[in-house]
Amino acid sequence: MSDVTVSSFPALSSMNALWQARYGTRPPTPPLPESPVARSLMAHRSVRAFSPTALPEGVLEAAVAAAQSASTACNMQAWSVVAVQDEQKRARIAELAGEQAFIAQAPLFLAWVADLSRLEQVGRAQDCALPGRDMLDTFVTSVIDTALAAQNAAAALESYGLGIVYVGAVRNQPEAIATELGLPPRALAVCGMSVGYPDRNHPTSIRPRLPQHVVLHRERYDAQPSAPADIAAYDERVRAARASQDQPARSWSESVLARLDNAAALHGREHLPQALRAMGFRLDQA
Amino acid sequence: MSDVTVSSFPALSSMNALWQARYGTRPPTPPLPESPVARSLMAHRSVRAFSPTALPEGVLEAAVAAAQSASTACNMQAWSVVAVQDEQKRARIAELAGEQAFIAQAPLFLAWVADLSRLEQVGRAQDCALPGRDMLDTFVTSVIDTALAAQNAAAALESYGLGIVYVGAVRNQPEAIATELGLPPRALAVCGMSVGYPDRNHPTSIRPRLPQHVVLHRERYDAQPSAPADIAAYDERVRAARASQDQPARSWSESVLARLDNAAALHGREHLPQALRAMGFRLDQA
Repeated sequence: MSDVTVSSFPALSSMNALWQARYGTRPPTPPLPESPVARSLMAHRSVRAFSPTALPEGVLEAAVAAAQSASTACNMQAWSVVAVQDEQKRARIAELAGEQAFIAQAPLFLAWVADLSRLEQVGRAQDCALPGRDMLDTFVTSVIDTALAAQNAAAALESYGLGIVYVGAVRNQPEAIATELGLPPRALAVCGMSVGYPDRNHPTSIRPRLPQHVVLHRERYDAQPSAPADIAAYDERVRAARASQDQPARSWSESVLARLDNAAALHGREHLPQALRAMGFRLDQA
Repeated sequence: MSDVTVSSFPALSSMNALWQARYGTRPPTPPLPESPVARSLMAHRSVRAFSPTALPEGVLEAAVAAAQSASTACNMQAWSVVAVQDEQKRARIAELAGEQAFIAQAPLFLAWVADLSRLEQVGRAQDCALPGRDMLDTFVTSVIDTALAAQNAAAALESYGLGIVYVGAVRNQPEAIATELGLPPRALAVCGMSVGYPDRNHPTSIRPRLPQHVVLHRERYDAQPSAPADIAAYDERVRAARASQDQPARSWSESVLARLDNAAALHGREHLPQALRAMGFRLDQA
């Protein structure tokens, strides 16, 4: 079954059409229960070509309100977000984050920051050392908090017809990014996000994903679903989808290997432990 | 200004009413642009008392389709989810995850798993060692992927009128949880999620959050917004909101200190580095 290109943005299709675009298979019977929220989420595609049109008033505030409405461990709210509109600053961030031109092009760049410095401020005010602050689990908690917040913002922004793309490459040179953003100690830009109206001359289609049964396990993790046949079939789907988007032919397996079979492919991220220590994180064990 | 209790579930209020409930301040002028998606996200509240009613058919599949539609670094899809319906299994997980009774009560428990084992399988098939697999950044990437997926699922589930609560306590005893779920090496249950219809006899209200200007920075991180006065005012709001829900009076600062001022308050999570190593993660530096 060929991949379905859903060119309308935002979601106008039914959930069943989106299922077919995502998985390349017929939707389940009975059909998925419709929900405007689930439909909008299923219609996500990363946008890397933006129109210069600015965001409407109030959209950033609504997105951050959605972000702050996400769950946060023990209400610690261990994250911050830096909204960068300044063009020159975006150009410098683009340089530092993998030379990705869309960062300079999109009118807004959001840096999602795992932020333990605010908690530290609370500790100082009460004269407490907060030893838990230096535990690896606290860093992980902060990263999770940040990601949940970012994803709520992404969903809200897309619901206004905007396009987004995550920028993991802010971790290529985390100290330089921290300097550019003026981050205090114990704050790491975990991911970036370029935001703007999609350039309609460069539409993107929904990217195929692994079959649901490979990812969703019932009662107990079952390694069997990731059988070689599943992976081989998905490899072919990815290769065909990339060809239809005029991207270099590459299977999913080839992408995974390109990313993980050579530490140099991490573009500096192999030094994250040292960078975190230099930025004031300790990641202790008890 | 007193906190607004929004007892309807799911979101029926306007975004401006939800803003007031979340921040305790008048909404911005001009009003936030309405969006059913943003409104649903802003209406989130964690549910810890569930009705035994089972989920409607197709809702889990829709939620996982939404989860798989979230962005994922380099399309690696480095996560899995284990859906646990079995009552006895949920009771055992409840024991392991902080003895939280709602895990046994809610009809569905989702374990969101940072999963590098599937990528390893791809490497083995191609006879590649995948050194990038052992980098701290790859673990962080996998945690982010997992959190983005989980949050999309949460948003989808809530849009069907279901309630959810995250369970970070799956990291109290990560190895025992892995055994219970049958996880392969290099797979960590990053967070759990109890899912079900909220028990209408125990409604929950929207939890107050820090003022938006404390979290949202413009162009550059500004430590000034977390001024003592902002924190003190928020401390009072949290204390009042807890009192109105018959919870022990405690300010935000007190909660933060209770969590971080004593490694024992981490309930085992202080041993995460050792647990990760025992589970096959290496978190190398280059």
